[in-house]
Amino acid sequence: MPAGTLLYAQSGGVTAVINASASAVIQTARTRKIRVLAARNGILGALREDLLDTATLSTADVRALAHTPGGAFGSCRLKLKSLDADRARYERLLEVFRAHDVRWFLYNGGNDSADTALKVSQLAAEFGYPLTCVGVPKTIDNDLAVTDCCPGFGSAAKYTAISVRECALDVAAMAETSTRVFVYEAMGRHAGWLAAAAGLAGEGKDDAPHIILFPERAYDEADFLAKVDAVVKRVGYCVVVASEGIRRADGSFVADAGGGKDSFGHTQLGGVASHLAGRVKDALGYKVHWALPDYLQRSARHIASKTDLEQAMAAGRAAVECALAGQNAVMPVIVRDSDAPYRWHIDIAPLEQIANHEKTMPKGFIRKDGYGITAAARRYLSPLIAGEAFPPFGDDGLPKYATPKLASVKKKLPAWKG
Amino acid sequence: MPAGTLLYAQSGGVTAVINASASAVIQTARTRKIRVLAARNGILGALREDLLDTATLSTADVRALAHTPGGAFGSCRLKLKSLDADRARYERLLEVFRAHDVRWFLYNGGNDSADTALKVSQLAAEFGYPLTCVGVPKTIDNDLAVTDCCPGFGSAAKYTAISVRECALDVAAMAETSTRVFVYEAMGRHAGWLAAAAGLAGEGKDDAPHIILFPERAYDEADFLAKVDAVVKRVGYCVVVASEGIRRADGSFVADAGGGKDSFGHTQLGGVASHLAGRVKDALGYKVHWALPDYLQRSARHIASKTDLEQAMAAGRAAVECALAGQNAVMPVIVRDSDAPYRWHIDIAPLEQIANHEKTMPKGFIRKDGYGITAAARRYLSPLIAGEAFPPFGDDGLPKYATPKLASVKKKLPAWKG
Repeated sequence: MPAGTLLYAQSGGVTAVINASASAVIQTARTRKIRVLAARNGILGALREDLLDTATLSTADVRALAHTPGGAFGSCRLKLKSLDADRARYERLLEVFRAHDVRWFLYNGGNDSADTALKVSQLAAEFGYPLTCVGVPKTIDNDLAVTDCCPGFGSAAKYTAISVRECALDVAAMAETSTRVFVYEAMGRHAGWLAAAAGLAGEGKDDAPHIILFPERAYDEADFLAKVDAVVKRVGYCVVVASEGIRRADGSFVADAGGGKDSFGHTQLGGVASHLAGRVKDALGYKVHWALPDYLQRSARHIASKTDLEQAMAAGRAAVECALAGQNAVMPVIVRDSDAPYRWHIDIAPLEQIANHEKTMPKGFIRKDGYGITAAARRYLSPLIAGEAFPPFGDDGLPKYATPKLASVKKKLPAWKG
Repeated sequence: MPAGTLLYAQSGGVTAVINASASAVIQTARTRKIRVLAARNGILGALREDLLDTATLSTADVRALAHTPGGAFGSCRLKLKSLDADRARYERLLEVFRAHDVRWFLYNGGNDSADTALKVSQLAAEFGYPLTCVGVPKTIDNDLAVTDCCPGFGSAAKYTAISVRECALDVAAMAETSTRVFVYEAMGRHAGWLAAAAGLAGEGKDDAPHIILFPERAYDEADFLAKVDAVVKRVGYCVVVASEGIRRADGSFVADAGGGKDSFGHTQLGGVASHLAGRVKDALGYKVHWALPDYLQRSARHIASKTDLEQAMAAGRAAVECALAGQNAVMPVIVRDSDAPYRWHIDIAPLEQIANHEKTMPKGFIRKDGYGITAAARRYLSPLIAGEAFPPFGDDGLPKYATPKLASVKKKLPAWKG
């Protein structure tokens, strides 16, 4: 077995396929006889020296990770600051790496994680510690720079498009005597990628979703309500998809309006869909329903995109190969060769080009009126949700998701007091 | 072709498999060379003489209905009252039936629809009009009397159990630095069947869902919050599933608390999950998220239960056979022969035993502490979500749902002024 250990950690919000990247990382490292440790709860586990030994996973366990949502080793939201501001933490990481002979660090996350991996690599160089840091892309927000798309997004996008297509059929059937307006809230604080994906649910002018609200466009209540009313009058019902992050022209978040009090004086948690539904009800008088799928949209492995799954696994494999080849401070990215037929390959990009950058949705993806997607958006989005990758199901009708218990690695250092 | 027409109508909230019943009705009638009309938007279409000719559906169209959610011909919420109180409507129905030589009326719905079908049959007898009325069971609420379970419920139950299993993995991975408590709101105003189905997502004491709130048990806020806190302290996070219809000991609906005002003075639509999440946040200080799948849970044909689909189709077939055999004022029901292996058959029950009755969840299905399901509930529920029945998917990654356009039947009567 070659000297050195590969440390893998998951970061930020999990996805339906982040464990597929993990599975590919472990499988690829095993074929190269590299020991793989995983940090429990992301970078926190690395700081705490709370490491899990993936050697205790059977081959079947590792394969099963590829069809299991969530984050098998735990993830965390912890953004490290600059090398100066957070020096103690970065040095602690190196100390832990040194103690466990970690020579390759693979960090599976988004912009922040790319930044952390980059800084760790810089500090290692400063200290003369031989370490190769590689990012593994992941985010349902689809906002990583350089890469054409992000593992995790395609599956959430597929969930969104299918859910909107399905509930639209429900609303269409009932509209005459029941719900006329249905509002679906999609994740997306800064960019409307998932809301845009809902647009794939229909193509014709009167197909649902009839209205999409993007954070990229200022929300104008009067215009929105007029549009809803017009759609109901023309089509009989109206399906609205709203990004959680939509804002008014003055920059205020529409969701913030929900922070009111209920009739008992208790905090009333709101959200965009609940707010819009309330406005439609008050101003137009239509019966309205709304859905907030929340975490369901990023954990719906049962309806994952096959394209997304393949890209997540390819990114994991490529990350190990990069690391073992000594390609430092890089991330495998997805390059699109053609839309139709959809062709892609993996390339390698410097973390510098990715860390702390944010890819926004191209202006040409939003229809001129601001309420729908363009043909260009369809060409981009459609292949990302293509293909099904159903998990295995048990006789009990439930997906057989893996929840392997891993052995903890014996600690060698004093406890971290960070 | 035998004389007479079969009229089929859908009623009340639609499900993932009501169109599968419709598909079976049309297929079975076609083999017997019976003409099938469908009323547009349920009984409303029958009153308005707004009838659709299913002869315009190709064989492929009819088959495709079996994998399409929503209500292909439209449904409605319209409860007819007693024969005396609503006599003009009942007589209008008979007038329309007579005008189109309707000899068999199949009404696909729940308790109310069974009642309507029963009353129509009584009036037809009174008038000496030869009509056979048959109910076709349908409801995600699983509250029809006599039948062991209701077509539509199993698929919504499967969606619920899978969604809760998936989002629990998400929460588990993130809990240390993010969301600690997750609340999932399930449909169920009077009975907690769908919330109970969520219990299938986990089996061990510390498996999610950790807390289920049933409308059958009085909601005690202090006890609930103490329980949430204990689970978070023991497990690290807590997944709560709440029926929309939970009530306090004084009978007040918990969801009604949500009828407050937001910071702009606008109506703030609430719901149970949003209320519970607010209370957890205020009282315990944990970061909390919640999901409200709303119509998604009853239209998720992509993850329908194969058992449910088979029962929906069997009920549709049996309804036609009953009707043609002249079995009047009956409904095909599902009889359970054994739990494991699960065996069932279709029997025929009088509408009288079903109309306006409501099957509640057996007391023995709710755990003594009121926050989970028993082994008996598992034995009952588990087979209902067994088996997958994926719809066909297109190259675009979306299910190929049928939205056939049907020809309207020429009207023969003056417009209805009801």
